[in-house]
Amino acid sequence: MTTMAPAPVQELDEQIRAKLLRVGSANVANVLLARGFRNVMMLGLAPLADSQEQLVGPAYTLRFIPAREDLDSMANYGRDDNKHRRAIEECPSGAVLVIDAGGSTAASSMGDMMATRLRYRGVSGVVTDGGYRDSAAIAETGLPCYQQRNAPPATPIALHPIALDEPVGCAGVAVYPGDVLVGDRDGVVVIPRDLVAEVADAALDAVEYEEFAAGHIARGRSILGLFPATPDSRTEYDEWVAAGRPEME
Amino acid sequence: MTTMAPAPVQELDEQIRAKLLRVGSANVANVLLARGFRNVMMLGLAPLADSQEQLVGPAYTLRFIPAREDLDSMANYGRDDNKHRRAIEECPSGAVLVIDAGGSTAASSMGDMMATRLRYRGVSGVVTDGGYRDSAAIAETGLPCYQQRNAPPATPIALHPIALDEPVGCAGVAVYPGDVLVGDRDGVVVIPRDLVAEVADAALDAVEYEEFAAGHIARGRSILGLFPATPDSRTEYDEWVAAGRPEME
Amino acid sequence: MTTMAPAPVQELDEQIRAKLLRVGSANVANVLLARGFRNVMMLGLAPLADSQEQLVGPAYTLRFIPAREDLDSMANYGRDDNKHRRAIEECPSGAVLVIDAGGSTAASSMGDMMATRLRYRGVSGVVTDGGYRDSAAIAETGLPCYQQRNAPPATPIALHPIALDEPVGCAGVAVYPGDVLVGDRDGVVVIPRDLVAEVADAALDAVEYEEFAAGHIARGRSILGLFPATPDSRTEYDEWVAAGRPEME
Amino acid sequence: MTTMAPAPVQELDEQIRAKLLRVGSANVANVLLARGFRNVMMLGLAPLADSQEQLVGPAYTLRFIPAREDLDSMANYGRDDNKHRRAIEECPSGAVLVIDAGGSTAASSMGDMMATRLRYRGVSGVVTDGGYRDSAAIAETGLPCYQQRNAPPATPIALHPIALDEPVGCAGVAVYPGDVLVGDRDGVVVIPRDLVAEVADAALDAVEYEEFAAGHIARGRSILGLFPATPDSRTEYDEWVAAGRPEME
Amino acid sequence: MTTMAPAPVQELDEQIRAKLLRVGSANVANVLLARGFRNVMMLGLAPLADSQEQLVGPAYTLRFIPAREDLDSMANYGRDDNKHRRAIEECPSGAVLVIDAGGSTAASSMGDMMATRLRYRGVSGVVTDGGYRDSAAIAETGLPCYQQRNAPPATPIALHPIALDEPVGCAGVAVYPGDVLVGDRDGVVVIPRDLVAEVADAALDAVEYEEFAAGHIARGRSILGLFPATPDSRTEYDEWVAAGRPEME
Amino acid sequence: MTTMAPAPVQELDEQIRAKLLRVGSANVANVLLARGFRNVMMLGLAPLADSQEQLVGPAYTLRFIPAREDLDSMANYGRDDNKHRRAIEECPSGAVLVIDAGGSTAASSMGDMMATRLRYRGVSGVVTDGGYRDSAAIAETGLPCYQQRNAPPATPIALHPIALDEPVGCAGVAVYPGDVLVGDRDGVVVIPRDLVAEVADAALDAVEYEEFAAGHIARGRSILGLFPATPDSRTEYDEWVAAGRPEME
Repeated sequence: MTTMAPAPVQELDEQIRAKLLRVGSANVANVLLARGFRNVMMLGLAPLADSQEQLVGPAYTLRFIPAREDLDSMANYGRDDNKHRRAIEECPSGAVLVIDAGGSTAASSMGDMMATRLRYRGVSGVVTDGGYRDSAAIAETGLPCYQQRNAPPATPIALHPIALDEPVGCAGVAVYPGDVLVGDRDGVVVIPRDLVAEVADAALDAVEYEEFAAGHIARGRSILGLFPATPDSRTEYDEWVAAGRPEME
Repeated sequence: MTTMAPAPVQELDEQIRAKLLRVGSANVANVLLARGFRNVMMLGLAPLADSQEQLVGPAYTLRFIPAREDLDSMANYGRDDNKHRRAIEECPSGAVLVIDAGGSTAASSMGDMMATRLRYRGVSGVVTDGGYRDSAAIAETGLPCYQQRNAPPATPIALHPIALDEPVGCAGVAVYPGDVLVGDRDGVVVIPRDLVAEVADAALDAVEYEEFAAGHIARGRSILGLFPATPDSRTEYDEWVAAGRPEME
Repeated sequence: MTTMAPAPVQELDEQIRAKLLRVGSANVANVLLARGFRNVMMLGLAPLADSQEQLVGPAYTLRFIPAREDLDSMANYGRDDNKHRRAIEECPSGAVLVIDAGGSTAASSMGDMMATRLRYRGVSGVVTDGGYRDSAAIAETGLPCYQQRNAPPATPIALHPIALDEPVGCAGVAVYPGDVLVGDRDGVVVIPRDLVAEVADAALDAVEYEEFAAGHIARGRSILGLFPATPDSRTEYDEWVAAGRPEME
Repeated sequence: MTTMAPAPVQELDEQIRAKLLRVGSANVANVLLARGFRNVMMLGLAPLADSQEQLVGPAYTLRFIPAREDLDSMANYGRDDNKHRRAIEECPSGAVLVIDAGGSTAASSMGDMMATRLRYRGVSGVVTDGGYRDSAAIAETGLPCYQQRNAPPATPIALHPIALDEPVGCAGVAVYPGDVLVGDRDGVVVIPRDLVAEVADAALDAVEYEEFAAGHIARGRSILGLFPATPDSRTEYDEWVAAGRPEME
Repeated sequence: MTTMAPAPVQELDEQIRAKLLRVGSANVANVLLARGFRNVMMLGLAPLADSQEQLVGPAYTLRFIPAREDLDSMANYGRDDNKHRRAIEECPSGAVLVIDAGGSTAASSMGDMMATRLRYRGVSGVVTDGGYRDSAAIAETGLPCYQQRNAPPATPIALHPIALDEPVGCAGVAVYPGDVLVGDRDGVVVIPRDLVAEVADAALDAVEYEEFAAGHIARGRSILGLFPATPDSRTEYDEWVAAGRPEME
Repeated sequence: MTTMAPAPVQELDEQIRAKLLRVGSANVANVLLARGFRNVMMLGLAPLADSQEQLVGPAYTLRFIPAREDLDSMANYGRDDNKHRRAIEECPSGAVLVIDAGGSTAASSMGDMMATRLRYRGVSGVVTDGGYRDSAAIAETGLPCYQQRNAPPATPIALHPIALDEPVGCAGVAVYPGDVLVGDRDGVVVIPRDLVAEVADAALDAVEYEEFAAGHIARGRSILGLFPATPDSRTEYDEWVAAGRPEME
């Protein structure tokens, strides 16, 4: 596999992206729960490779419906106006391609040629509630990808691309174009677009507190009074931060 | 329950409708298979009541995506521009309301008030890949309805209406607006809109041949040479029809 | 089957019971949703018979864990201190026996002898997230019963009764002893015990408004401005009630 | 539907058949459990119609494997040596046609023409771990049938008949040709062929004891000391039988 | 992640633990089968990391039921008497925390802070029939953990801790406090507490015989007459052991 | 684990095998789709180890049915005429052992002793629609193996070997003896035996074209007009091949 030269990433404020690259999907889910959002983690999706980078980026969506034999021939599939192929060329750099496959793994949501192209174009990753073909080759591109399970049959056997960049459901969660996705080994969480900045701040704060708490726990302190944070432990943390985060004993 | 006074049914040629009211979904599926369509029966759907009428009509679609807490309050649900409620008022008389709920039974695709209104308006029936609430009361209206299984929680708990009358997937089958659905106790089959007239003819022909064959089988004749039809048995059938379908001995 | 002579029912205020016998599980779920309770409908349970009475009563629970060959012989099963058998004799008259079988249909949660005894003792019904044996005979007793699906193998093959009248999960919903269950054809809803009176009132009010709305819808009125209720339609309803609910035209 | 004139039933001793027509599948499962057989109830199968007769008869098996496009055309399907069609003509009168469809409901295990022929030929019933097409018409024939769920697509879309009358697995249970199946509303149980006579006797004995116990329970007696039977209650039962089963008070 | 300094392990005899660290879960299952225990392997659970240590230890249990909105706020979750948090502080060193989550992956059974604390306290591992959040960070602690699949949403969204150290069902197997669990890449097996010593001996004997057999098989010997062991092969093995297990040719 | 010394592989033309070792299962599926075969990828199977070799070889089949307690004792299991054990000794070198376990993971389709023997005998790999025990030890042998998920209980608990080398269904696909299987990280595809040579050629051609296309895509070229191939891009490829596949710029 030739080395990838990813194009520059855009559209999500770089400071927010930097924060979201440091937080876990579970941290984000907690922050959203505190704001009344309970259904934000995609269900049953797993990363294609344990070693892939953290996924962060705004959603650009592709929706499939079931294929029909007269519309979904291999000949039609190769047309340049096929929306599956258009999605690969039109998904913005920096964005995450979110595919609503209706949960079907009867045919592939993407193969390695498409993944190679997306990686080159600077797309941040791909999420499908179906699955991929050529999974080993996709993993080699380094593109962060999530799926339900492998789905090697050719796309037109079972899936027809019907719409681009509209609101979809994916793995049980609503995704509106521009919502921001964060994915790690736990899975993928969706942040409503208007809340991204505040959620990034709150999640990063939680991560930094957890680093503090983990240091204490690893030295033998109980989680009681420490995790989840209490007013007292929070004060202690603030003082530790103010002191320049000194080495724990 | 007050007696329903259904409005007149339109839009599907009445002769075609009359033919499709006499054929089974399995007959239609066979005719479509002979034309290369293999994936036409909706998966896992059952009629709400064994006694309901045969379902026949062109598709008018409603698509749901998962709900989100800030968008799907009960207050928003009651707005007149809510697409779930608009579907109930705008689905044409004679049509079938086909609901893509993403297969979710976490909330209701329809309740009895909506069914009562659809029945009054002359809508032919409702199909969802999710489920209904107030199922006993819906059954009383006589409206032919298909679902995966009961789904009594209020719609906004889990479902957000996002689009009307666009192509959808429902229970694993593509449904384009205007495709014609036929439902009986076996389930629901979808006929591509351009093929409806020829499929109705071919399916009715198959049903009439089956009545001939059933008469013979019930009198002890083997299915070999009789069912499926052979050229000889077909000739025999044609002669019997020409003779005015005389009583079998 | 000899005629049943059910014992008198107790423990739930008779006026509240009377109200809950008139409302649907979906009405109750709506009322609970308005109070912040989203997860109250048991998932995937169905009545044993379409014709069975409405289920209403406070919960008395039995919890099973998987069987183990040395503990769950048929000999041990017949002992009088077996908690499965104790539940049948100790579940209070008027209560609902709620069985947490861990969702297992590998063995029976109850058979017809037990159902006959419960019916005689005036128990209001039985709910399991597993299933029953002798389902036809149970249905004949008239006891309202809900299950996932038939589970005819003998109980000790797969289930061990471990505890009576403690909090359990059943079909995805928390059930604390004394919570009140309401079951109809849609399924079973659980009302937290401290909310029963107010929920019964609010649900009955909703049912009565729905009867008013259904009358109008059956006469051709749109659901817009009528269902869900608006302040104007509510005023109209109140006036109609004040006028003695006159016949609609 | 013309009236069926079923051919006479053979092969299973008529006295044994008469006994098995009186017992429930759960009774049979209990008797087999006492002899060390734990896995005898087919999983997830339901009768096609609640009103169908009890199923009793020795197994004659048909095994399907998945279809392949070059072998499973409609043309090949119509050949007289197709094993699916041969099964319909060769399954012995009195036997039960047991179909191993590998659990697939992607295509039909049988339709109404085949059911009509089997009924005429005196076959006792059909069991599949897949499903049927034309289910309403099959139910009308009166043939006792069990399936997982409706499967209306034409057989050659997904199933290829590969073998007749060999040992198969069906719905999780081993079925050897000649094993005897008993089916009621609970489902279907399989009796190893060498044990049929003794199992029929023991199951009938259990049923008769249960009738005795049910009489007492319906009159208010506790299940403790009565069900399951104890030595004392057994003695009481024997005396009641010896006394000519007098009316209970 | 700071280096863990696990506390010393207790309660299971160290010689027995040493034996069980050398055997596979499948060996243990075989030994239990020979004693009549058929249902001992937890179903559908997988290790969090392929590289994690073998899991061995006596069970300490935590049982969840579904959450309810009024009881399961984040505020209540942080209380020191919350049983989820108590389990983390009270599970004995050397024990395995076995969590009955009713099979739910709608919320987390444990996160990385809790895992860090358990590791420090010398707990041997964690088994849930639900799933974890922060799975990558848990894997880094080295704590052997088994789950169904990742479950990142916060615990109070769906789970309520209801009881500690009582008999539970977990992944289809009964677990009584003090039963000993053994987990490897195949999954987790449960040994009834009274049989631990004899099972450890018998399983280790089987492992040692398998090493002997594997040596022969890798040199070309047939499995017939060698595996499973025959009296002759067993004699040959005993002689080889008596000879000091000489290098095979 | 002692080093394996695999026996020489036979029966599949070595040139064809060499080609199939270079192509992906998805390439093969595409080539078969172009010839009208849509159902060729086994569903839901995964490789035992990500690092295992590509699987290529003709099918030799073993069919299981559910176990029965009187036939499937451990004593019977050890007999030399047990078909499970015969399969291990009789599966030809170079072939793939394909196991139809009816999809059951209630007991093991194979353990490490058997895998060691198969590896020594030069068998190419094993595919089951059930699962294995001793999965870590099997992975160490290097034998390419596919399964649904781990299934550690002893085989006779749930599976009875009934037939060798007959047509079977495995994971939803028909497998006739001599059909050739190709497995990679995506899963396993089945090639009908009469098409193996032409499918190998066409799949290898597709792979080589994809290498050409991937080189261009990695350098920034759009997939439009390049992938899937167009007549123009195909000409360009042919010229590049004729030019000796020069380094791309």
